[in-house]
Amino acid sequence: MGTRMATNMINKGLKLKVYDIDSAAARNVKGATVVNSPKEAAQDVKVVITMLPDSSVVRESVRGKDGIVEGISKNGLHVDCSTCEPQFARELYNFAKENGYRFLDSPVSGGVTGAQAATLTYMLGGNKSDVDFVEPILLTAGSRVVHCGDSGAGQIAKLCNNLLLAASMTAVCEAMNLGIKMGLDGKLLASIINTSTGRCWSSETYSPVPGLMPNVPSSNGYEGGFQMKLTAKDLALAQSTALSCGAPLPVTGLVHQLYRVMMTKGYGNKDFSSVYEFYQ
Amino acid sequence: MGTRMATNMINKGLKLKVYDIDSAAARNVKGATVVNSPKEAAQDVKVVITMLPDSSVVRESVRGKDGIVEGISKNGLHVDCSTCEPQFARELYNFAKENGYRFLDSPVSGGVTGAQAATLTYMLGGNKSDVDFVEPILLTAGSRVVHCGDSGAGQIAKLCNNLLLAASMTAVCEAMNLGIKMGLDGKLLASIINTSTGRCWSSETYSPVPGLMPNVPSSNGYEGGFQMKLTAKDLALAQSTALSCGAPLPVTGLVHQLYRVMMTKGYGNKDFSSVYEFYQ
Amino acid sequence: MGTRMATNMINKGLKLKVYDIDSAAARNVKGATVVNSPKEAAQDVKVVITMLPDSSVVRESVRGKDGIVEGISKNGLHVDCSTCEPQFARELYNFAKENGYRFLDSPVSGGVTGAQAATLTYMLGGNKSDVDFVEPILLTAGSRVVHCGDSGAGQIAKLCNNLLLAASMTAVCEAMNLGIKMGLDGKLLASIINTSTGRCWSSETYSPVPGLMPNVPSSNGYEGGFQMKLTAKDLALAQSTALSCGAPLPVTGLVHQLYRVMMTKGYGNKDFSSVYEFYQ
Amino acid sequence: MGTRMATNMINKGLKLKVYDIDSAAARNVKGATVVNSPKEAAQDVKVVITMLPDSSVVRESVRGKDGIVEGISKNGLHVDCSTCEPQFARELYNFAKENGYRFLDSPVSGGVTGAQAATLTYMLGGNKSDVDFVEPILLTAGSRVVHCGDSGAGQIAKLCNNLLLAASMTAVCEAMNLGIKMGLDGKLLASIINTSTGRCWSSETYSPVPGLMPNVPSSNGYEGGFQMKLTAKDLALAQSTALSCGAPLPVTGLVHQLYRVMMTKGYGNKDFSSVYEFYQ
Repeated sequence: MGTRMATNMINKGLKLKVYDIDSAAARNVKGATVVNSPKEAAQDVKVVITMLPDSSVVRESVRGKDGIVEGISKNGLHVDCSTCEPQFARELYNFAKENGYRFLDSPVSGGVTGAQAATLTYMLGGNKSDVDFVEPILLTAGSRVVHCGDSGAGQIAKLCNNLLLAASMTAVCEAMNLGIKMGLDGKLLASIINTSTGRCWSSETYSPVPGLMPNVPSSNGYEGGFQMKLTAKDLALAQSTALSCGAPLPVTGLVHQLYRVMMTKGYGNKDFSSVYEFYQ
Repeated sequence: MGTRMATNMINKGLKLKVYDIDSAAARNVKGATVVNSPKEAAQDVKVVITMLPDSSVVRESVRGKDGIVEGISKNGLHVDCSTCEPQFARELYNFAKENGYRFLDSPVSGGVTGAQAATLTYMLGGNKSDVDFVEPILLTAGSRVVHCGDSGAGQIAKLCNNLLLAASMTAVCEAMNLGIKMGLDGKLLASIINTSTGRCWSSETYSPVPGLMPNVPSSNGYEGGFQMKLTAKDLALAQSTALSCGAPLPVTGLVHQLYRVMMTKGYGNKDFSSVYEFYQ
Repeated sequence: MGTRMATNMINKGLKLKVYDIDSAAARNVKGATVVNSPKEAAQDVKVVITMLPDSSVVRESVRGKDGIVEGISKNGLHVDCSTCEPQFARELYNFAKENGYRFLDSPVSGGVTGAQAATLTYMLGGNKSDVDFVEPILLTAGSRVVHCGDSGAGQIAKLCNNLLLAASMTAVCEAMNLGIKMGLDGKLLASIINTSTGRCWSSETYSPVPGLMPNVPSSNGYEGGFQMKLTAKDLALAQSTALSCGAPLPVTGLVHQLYRVMMTKGYGNKDFSSVYEFYQ
Repeated sequence: MGTRMATNMINKGLKLKVYDIDSAAARNVKGATVVNSPKEAAQDVKVVITMLPDSSVVRESVRGKDGIVEGISKNGLHVDCSTCEPQFARELYNFAKENGYRFLDSPVSGGVTGAQAATLTYMLGGNKSDVDFVEPILLTAGSRVVHCGDSGAGQIAKLCNNLLLAASMTAVCEAMNLGIKMGLDGKLLASIINTSTGRCWSSETYSPVPGLMPNVPSSNGYEGGFQMKLTAKDLALAQSTALSCGAPLPVTGLVHQLYRVMMTKGYGNKDFSSVYEFYQ
């Protein structure tokens, strides 16, 4: 994700310093200056953007050895595009405040495909003025910026969207598998669903049935796309967020457990649409 | 449903005989000739259309006292728009064949709203020539006719679509409830979802959150719309169909059970989007 | 099951005629007279006992060609030990009445092990006097006869017990897998559970963890025992029975779906405790 | 729980200092010396025992103002009988080591009834010598001490048992509700289950069906017993523990979500067997 976003930003004329714990990945971003630490990346820039696997890695990049807090300018802006729990976003927001800089949570929607095509949606939590400031920069690698509310609100919106995505994809897998096993033509069934009340992003643009669409993971052995272990991570974050506010999530909980069963069968690195294969 | 469809047909210039076990309902169809039995309704017409609550009622209307089989012309056509199990459609198809007439299963998608607005989609199973014959007639009360395959295929397509609908609506309820409880604005969250990967018919056109949209059941005390007991019936049909072909339906099964729990709490006559209220 | 029950009955001194569609299976019962049809088996005996895979086979054995109804004495007694839906038991009861003989549903609990050891429990539905009459005969192959109520009540009791069995076994699999993965010794954990509030038949006598107990399927590659496809059948019967009376079964429904997923992975012929293996 | 345990200990001749944030509760323990802080309670005693609602309260009692660490003797022993996540037990164990004293996790099984009757089972994690030392003391308020393994092992065993308890109780509710709705007598059905493969602690000693047993919460409006919100807490701990080791928990997850739905309907303070009432 990070490599693709950085490349798009450079192509739109931005100047970037990049850091990755794997320096080869950093060097993949043509036209960027590779640096040796988050601290260096944060020095003398308008905005520091992080895109990392989980909150513990983000925390390390901010507060660890040679971390962002050591390099960021007074009143600088840190935008975290990683998907993390809302409470962690608020922790970073308060930490930034105490250390004299600004922070926005800004998880993205659109996945690897969206990152490649610069069509990401950013969901931001934090101060409106900071969102306005960073919007033109973010749009060099995306197509939409939404201010969701106070700190943490971006993460909440992301988790809500993603639990719905995971549930509807899994339900598409159930519907398509049932119909095809009962003798319907997959393309025909998809076209009916896509013009009926079952229509959803998963069925319209990302069919889990191999061969119905080109350029989707299901037509490529469920490689690429949105890895099940990452979807499972988002569902775990949704669950712990739900615990904090008393919202029940039965369907989400079941989908999460289904993923966890599948992960014991080697599906962790496959696309989350591989539920279709698993049902067969 | 039947009343609305019949009214649209008459408004488009068709001549109709109508029969309902509740004769008041039949008289509601202005401009139609009310008759006293399915047999009478079936006599001397190009096509007999049934729209009934379940397969046992359909069977009674066909094979019961003064049933359709007693009145239908040689080589006549019976189109059943009820939602039933695929196997029952095949039973009627074979029964028709043995008795010298033709049969199509033709469940519809679009609900009461679609019936009112004449925007129903018909999903047909049976012979192509029969579908071609009846298409212009059906389109007087709908906007789309899809030939899904052999006898029963219309029912299969309907059940596949409806299980997906039920699951995605329930997941929308979980996502919206979580986000709103965590402090997000409902309209904002819906707009994010509707332009992201969680986008689906339930969120875009039929929000379960009261007050977000006019003219949807959630803004009307969950009255009208698609009654939970009917959605539950479709999910039960999907389950029994799945049993016959070995397709697993975990998410569908859970949604079905959730409905069944809710039905013990008086939600059977409410719209299926009332899961949102139940989660609160 | 049938072979083992018949052998125990003969060992206790009863005289038996036996019929099996697979005549080799019938000849396995040493000391019995092998006959050529259900009709022959039913002629001139005090009681006809059936033990068959499902209701369609039972129906065939009763009403099919050379069926029981053709041979059974006036006022004779048919006892069906198969597990079927309660409604089917009532159908057979009424059929018997109309044809001048008596009928009891009598599914058994105890499995192959219980059949072998003559420790089966019979759950009977029908008239008390018929239960009293057949009790000494049934006890030659079992240890307990329970009159559950009117016709069908035996089947209801069996289904209720079996759904609880399936759910508690699956929960034992979850508990043992979690504890062992977290580093606990399996034997120790089982001993704690067996003397605590988690104690149940599945944990005490039929551990799903290989190597904890001798002579259970888990210690024999999950061979023998209670095949998952048969457990799944019982859960499907429980679901359809629950539909008829409005009882929700969420946990049972999930276990059923888990089995159905596992059956797509080749577990249908394995013991139902193989969920433990599947979770790993 | 704490009051009952303390009273039993005093009745067996132990001398106790007691502290509770609610001093009235502390004064309820006849014969104990009421003190003003965890620190005071920890001074000059052979062992400090805590029994608290969750890990944050335990942490506060140990490391907060006037906490146990400030009063406990060099090489003293702290035994925590609260139910917490295994990882928290290890945190306290390490904290104790660094501060020169000893620690055991020791959650209990048996509930309020067991605490009253001094029949609790203690599940201990930590060093064997410490377990041996404290065993006679614990047995003044219980009947069994089990050393489960290293630090945290007591909590793991407790969570495994409790998830199995919650699942089997819920399945008992499904089985009993189905059978009774289908016309079986509740006492008869329970007696069949209790002598068959569905037999479990929940059915044998704690029936969720009102009126089948005296002195259980179901016969007292689901008051007393094991509050659903506490069972739900244990299931949440089980889930987060399972996340750490990759063990799937589908059935447990569903039961947890069912509780969470019920908690939105006011069942949080009722006994966990009230699922039976909810299903009706």
